[in-house]
Parts: sequence; C-alpha cells; structure tokens
Amino acid sequence: MRFTSQTSFDGVTEQLFTLPFTFGEIPGVLWVPDDVAPTRPLILMGHGGGQHKLAPGIVARARRFVAEGGFAVAAIDAPAHGDRPRTEEHDRVIAEMRTRRQSGGDATAALAELHTLLAGQIVPEWRAVLDAVQELDHVGAGPVGYWGVSLGCALGVPLVAAEPRIRAAVLGLNGAESLAEAAAQITVPLEFLVQWDDEMVPRAESVALFDRFASTEKTLHANPGKHGEVPTFELDSSLRFFARHLS
Amino acid sequence: MRFTSQTSFDGVTEQLFTLPFTFGEIPGVLWVPDDVAPTRPLILMGHGGGQHKLAPGIVARARRFVAEGGFAVAAIDAPAHGDRPRTEEHDRVIAEMRTRRQSGGDATAALAELHTLLAGQIVPEWRAVLDAVQELDHVGAGPVGYWGVSLGCALGVPLVAAEPRIRAAVLGLNGAESLAEAAAQITVPLEFLVQWDDEMVPRAESVALFDRFASTEKTLHANPGKHGEVPTFELDSSLRFFARHLS
Repeated sequence: MRFTSQTSFDGVTEQLFTLPFTFGEIPGVLWVPDDVAPTRPLILMGHGGGQHKLAPGIVARARRFVAEGGFAVAAIDAPAHGDRPRTEEHDRVIAEMRTRRQSGGDATAALAELHTLLAGQIVPEWRAVLDAVQELDHVGAGPVGYWGVSLGCALGVPLVAAEPRIRAAVLGLNGAESLAEAAAQITVPLEFLVQWDDEMVPRAESVALFDRFASTEKTLHANPGKHGEVPTFELDSSLRFFARHLS
Repeated sequence: MRFTSQTSFDGVTEQLFTLPFTFGEIPGVLWVPDDVAPTRPLILMGHGGGQHKLAPGIVARARRFVAEGGFAVAAIDAPAHGDRPRTEEHDRVIAEMRTRRQSGGDATAALAELHTLLAGQIVPEWRAVLDAVQELDHVGAGPVGYWGVSLGCALGVPLVAAEPRIRAAVLGLNGAESLAEAAAQITVPLEFLVQWDDEMVPRAESVALFDRFASTEKTLHANPGKHGEVPTFELDSSLRFFARHLS
C-alpha cells in the first residue's frame, strides 16, 4: 500500500493510496481522526454507479463518520469507475445497458450482468484493501462495517456475504435481481434504505431483497422520494447503527 | 387537574393525576425531569389494547424519554382501559370482537368499530389533558409530540389529525382499516413502525396506512418479528426523532 497524498482538515486526515493488485493498482482513500488510538472500527464505503471514491456524498459521509463516530473510513474506485481503466468487457456491457435504456427497453438483465462482472473484481480487491488497512498502525484490526447504496449495495451484498470480518452493514437502493443468492448468505445486522418512489428500483424488488437477507437483526427504512433523495437524517441513523455494532 | 400521588426515582418525578371531564374523570400520569426548566417539550404516550397508563412498556419508554431527552411525558388510561369503567356500548363492541375471534371469524370490522368508539371519546380527552398539562409551571407550552403503536396508533391517528399543537409523532403496528381518512389529514413528521411478521396486522395494511399519511417527512421502519417484538433500538430512534423535531 503506497500513500500518495495526505491532507488534514477539521480534525480529519485524508490519505490517498494505491494498492497493487491482480488487475493493476487499486486507487483508494482513507479517512481517520487526527487523534491517536490503538485501534479503531473501520467502515468500508462503496460509491454509487458513475461515481468514484471522492464523490461529494462519499466524502461528506466519511468525514461525519470519522468526526462524530471516531471511525476510520476507506473508499476505493470500483472497476471502470473514477481513476480506473475500462476493459473491453466493461465497454461491451455498459454499451449494451445504455442501448437498452435509450431505446426504452428493459435494461435489467444488462445491469445485472454489469453488477456481476464488477462484483467478481471488487470483492477480492476490497478484501486485499481490508488486509492492508488493518495492518496500518493508525487503524489496526478493529471491527469492520460496510456502507453502500445503489451500485454500492450491488457490490456490497457479495462482499458482506464473503467477508467474515464485516460485522454490520448499511445497504439499500437496490433490488433482488442478481443479489438474492448472496443476500441469503448474510447474517450480520443490517440497515436497509428504500426510497419509496424510486424511479430506478421498483418497490417490490427492494422489499424482495430485504426479505432475502438471513440476518435476524435487519431494519428497512423507507422514505418518500426518488432514488437520489435519501433524507439527511438517515446518515445520523447509519452513524448510530455502526456505533451500536462496532464500538 | 388534581394530583393524587408524587414519587421521584433516578432523576424522574412521576405524578398521578385525575382530570374531570365529560364522561367522568380521566386518570393520567405525568413524568418530568427533576431539574428545573422554564418550559419543556411534551410527549403524549398512548398505550396498547388491554394495557393501561402504567403498563411496563409505557413506564420504561417514558422514563427514558424524560431521563435522556429532557421531555415531559403524559399518559392516560384509554376509555374502557385501566382504572376506567366500561359502558354498555364498550361491553357490546368488545364482546362482539371476542366472539368473532373465538369463532375464528373476521374481527376486523368489530375492531374498527371499537377503535372508532374509543377515538371519539379519547381525542377530546387528550386535548383537555394537553390544555391542563401545558398550564403547569414545570411543563409549560413547549412543542408537543405523540407516541403510540397498536391501539395507541388507532387512537393517535385521529388525535394527531385533530390537534395542531402536535408537531411530530411515532406511530405503527396498525393498518389502514378505519384510519385512512384521518391519516390523510396528517402532515407532521412521522416515524412509522411495522413488524414484518405481525400476526395481527397484515403487512399490506400497514404499508397502506403509511402511504396514506400526507406528511412530506415520514419514515417506515420495518423489523422482522411479531406484533409484540419491536426491537429495543427503535426506542433510541424514537428518542432521536423527537429530539430532532421538538428540541
């Protein structure tokens, strides 16, 4: 793991890093409180489709998790997102999805194919990032959580299913399509966000995904509004959820 | 308003009271923090069916709202509950509901009739209690919230619809049957609790009631489990919800 920049603002240190891995380097960012602690809980944060590790929503959430919860937070660019190159396969599947959407057709199958492709790449990447971050003196091997909605949920469900160090997760804004099988392997506490008037994810698909999680503690939070309109107070709720399970 | 007993424990003062009203006296209880404040937010708390103002769940919630939120909390016995007499009409409707249930029939209509009967009595009673409590020096005319699930929701929906002093409410564990019309008049922020495996309220009825509220801020919280199994962490959420809207 190689750190390429470090800045500190308002009690939060932001470090950009790259980690060499099978498909080239993984570009990431780590936020930690300025104060010294022997070990701290870590949140892995997955960005949305078309976004990247430093998207405004990711940065704002990460800074609050660090400043108010004392967590460390790590985000990486998903394959084909942010600073990462696209392969021919990415181009093909993304083009297929766009064509379907532009022609007014059903892009569900193409989107599911894209998610499956990206998940196959990012799950081992996240696990390598987790190994590396937990070896850092200023983070350590504390409890781990995952936060990700929309694409961050599509890639987070297989990750949370595969990685036993993740003890709690906030997921949402996605449906059962392509995720039902991995969801049934998840048993950790969950908060699951649903936008009641989501123009991208049908309500029934969201509820079907929630129903598939095997977790005994899982809470669905539904709010009025479209895909991008999750109310700010849900961030407070996520913060307290992680504090309850990781502190 | 006449106080009949006062005890203080762990920083919380509990005062039993009676308030003369049209149908005899209303027996109630008021919890306030021991510290002095010029005015404080007030939560009206509605108990469940067959319960009363000092049911363990009501007392435990009230004490936490007072101790951790600095709220005053008031609860009253619903008509035909706790220390209150039953009229012949109560007896008739309750008997009808029990007969239906015992014969394995559909008690929905009888239950709705009971709720309508009780709501017609308790809404003006609650408003009189609110008048009287807000005149007390140790409470004052601060912002008001309502907490009530199950029967507390059935009687709370018409109350919140009718009483403009109530600025936020936690409701749930009830369906649209008999409540849809009043729900459509509610515009204040809501948290709405649903038990995903509720043996008494079908999931679709719960969702239908949530959909009827006219509030722009409303959040449905769904948890696995039966009618009586709302997880403890929802109390933390209610507390923060009221702190956000009433403080």
